[in-house]
Amino acid sequence: MAEKLMMDAGSVGVVETQTFHYPHAMPLESGQALGPITLAYETYGTLSPAKDNAILILHALSGDAHVAGYHAEDLEKPKPKPGWWDIMVGPGKAFDTTRFFVVCSNIIGGCMGSTGPSSINPATGDRYAMKFPLVTIGDMVEAQRLLMDHLEIARWYAVTGGSMGGMQALQWAVAYPERVARCIPIATTHRLSAQSIAFDAVGRVAIMNDPDWQDGRYYDRALPANGLAMARMIGHITYLLEQSMHEKFGRRLRHAEEYTWNFAPEFSVETYLQHQGDEFVKRFDANSYLYITKAMDYFDLGAKHDSLPQAMAQAQSRFLVISFTSDWLFTTAQSREIVRALRLNGIDASFVEIDTSYGHDAFLLEAEEITRLLKGFLR
Amino acid sequence: MAEKLMMDAGSVGVVETQTFHYPHAMPLESGQALGPITLAYETYGTLSPAKDNAILILHALSGDAHVAGYHAEDLEKPKPKPGWWDIMVGPGKAFDTTRFFVVCSNIIGGCMGSTGPSSINPATGDRYAMKFPLVTIGDMVEAQRLLMDHLEIARWYAVTGGSMGGMQALQWAVAYPERVARCIPIATTHRLSAQSIAFDAVGRVAIMNDPDWQDGRYYDRALPANGLAMARMIGHITYLLEQSMHEKFGRRLRHAEEYTWNFAPEFSVETYLQHQGDEFVKRFDANSYLYITKAMDYFDLGAKHDSLPQAMAQAQSRFLVISFTSDWLFTTAQSREIVRALRLNGIDASFVEIDTSYGHDAFLLEAEEITRLLKGFLR
Repeated sequence: MAEKLMMDAGSVGVVETQTFHYPHAMPLESGQALGPITLAYETYGTLSPAKDNAILILHALSGDAHVAGYHAEDLEKPKPKPGWWDIMVGPGKAFDTTRFFVVCSNIIGGCMGSTGPSSINPATGDRYAMKFPLVTIGDMVEAQRLLMDHLEIARWYAVTGGSMGGMQALQWAVAYPERVARCIPIATTHRLSAQSIAFDAVGRVAIMNDPDWQDGRYYDRALPANGLAMARMIGHITYLLEQSMHEKFGRRLRHAEEYTWNFAPEFSVETYLQHQGDEFVKRFDANSYLYITKAMDYFDLGAKHDSLPQAMAQAQSRFLVISFTSDWLFTTAQSREIVRALRLNGIDASFVEIDTSYGHDAFLLEAEEITRLLKGFLR
Repeated sequence: MAEKLMMDAGSVGVVETQTFHYPHAMPLESGQALGPITLAYETYGTLSPAKDNAILILHALSGDAHVAGYHAEDLEKPKPKPGWWDIMVGPGKAFDTTRFFVVCSNIIGGCMGSTGPSSINPATGDRYAMKFPLVTIGDMVEAQRLLMDHLEIARWYAVTGGSMGGMQALQWAVAYPERVARCIPIATTHRLSAQSIAFDAVGRVAIMNDPDWQDGRYYDRALPANGLAMARMIGHITYLLEQSMHEKFGRRLRHAEEYTWNFAPEFSVETYLQHQGDEFVKRFDANSYLYITKAMDYFDLGAKHDSLPQAMAQAQSRFLVISFTSDWLFTTAQSREIVRALRLNGIDASFVEIDTSYGHDAFLLEAEEITRLLKGFLR
């Protein structure tokens, strides 16, 4: 199996997650500080001698640095799964690793190898838990900028990401204009709507109401599994378009032709959501879910510059903005606002709305169309 | 204050909730039985000697029999609130009580004076809790039909309701065609979509995960307040259109100009939802929430007749179907399906989509437009 995967011409093959350690304290937007910092990242392809072929990929809420290829230990599993955007990263793919040096960076506040609430607080020797300071999308990007300096890259050939990854990409373009040649925000927004904040807030309440949450000090005990699973279930509904849920599940029953007349999950959509929730609990930290959704709620790219157009006046990148017709979490209208703000500043911004029924998750699935767009834009 | 309210020409004044007791057991769709049954209801206006002016109003998930006027005890309060559809029921209003005898019936399974999970199970002398049998929209209507017989009304001049009240209205028209002259389903559907089932399911999980839920046996202890509040918060997001949430709250902060940098609710939309959740807990029973949402999930008007058009072939009423542009819980498309099924059978069905930004709750708010439509239809 391993050999077969390795022989796949489009795969980057076996990769390892690396860690960047920053020994100092980093000031945060809140006024607090965080440090030392560890940031998990992966790289694919080769950095050119001129160091001008590096592309930074940023992930969404539940993602990690493992964007493509296989971890050696995964190859032992019966069905090894590649990184989360393997369809986009590899030899000959949209982010062509024979040409580009692709970097995927994790985020501070997360739980996938970087400093977050589950990390040890050097001041106490204990886990941070809720003593972890609130971090923002700006803080996440600041930590990535430290990684960039460490890699001795002066300017990204491109910065891209979907959903929260797109927020980071936008933040990069405004905070470090001279260091981002191209910016590709996908299925994202410059700030969350009231409805998105509402969904995030209910997810956090679900976690914090779980008696196992214990004010965040659950690391050596039972996890707040029910609360985290529920938060994921709520989130998952928002990732899927009504229409695609209808096509996928309709009113189909899971195990029976007839109603069961009890309160066990019986519609397919119920068992699907339960499964999504239960799987999420196995791989994600509840406190990180609190911190990351809060960072998303706080993100408001225009606020510090009084307006989005004034924020975008900072940018020096070329932009390709991509949205999806069926995404009701971060809508095409929100992408259009970004494009309008860019064009008001005379910035070169292409905009494409892809027709799809996959909803918000389309950025992970519409490989063919996104690849075609990216190949043109990155040429 | 009381006198002033009484003097309001459009008010039905002070009213009392009545109870109908059915001493026998009623067979349920599940194959189980329920009885004796108590059903709470209110009436307004006078039944004509020919008993041909009776209109039945049916309420939504969290409603009750108190559709209009004031309960005497409420007049003691500083700001007495009238019944939930007072804008529609009274002298000269859409349901004109100088002309019609208006009946509003509660539902079995509920917690507003009718037999439900919080009632005493005569077989045990203890509360039913989760021993209460599952009831359907059809069962709710069957109990209302017993009330109708008790009131010696042969045929409703009209049956109407919004949301789940609309489901009951549809069920009435199909189950008892000869007893419904006019049917006015508002902001409703003949069956829930996968997405609506998903939201209901997450709300139930929230309740059943609350450690205070105790398998439903919480009546003499702490209530599962967190779980029920969370279910209500989720529900409430679905009642509001994204656009109206944006207009109402945007990204406004509740108490401050600046972010608070902690996890207390701080966006106005968060505190609003928390408030909605907390208020709901004061007046609603968590087990009833489980049973009623399940009844809605199970509702599928066409299923027993193989298709919606075949179900509608039973109907003998004239129909006025009303939907709202901004209702994304029960959409205009779903109302159109109902109208199409009616017209396929040559049934007289008017359809109006009202342009509003109030979302699903519009049926409680768009009084002027609905009144205009109803006055014409009920003439």
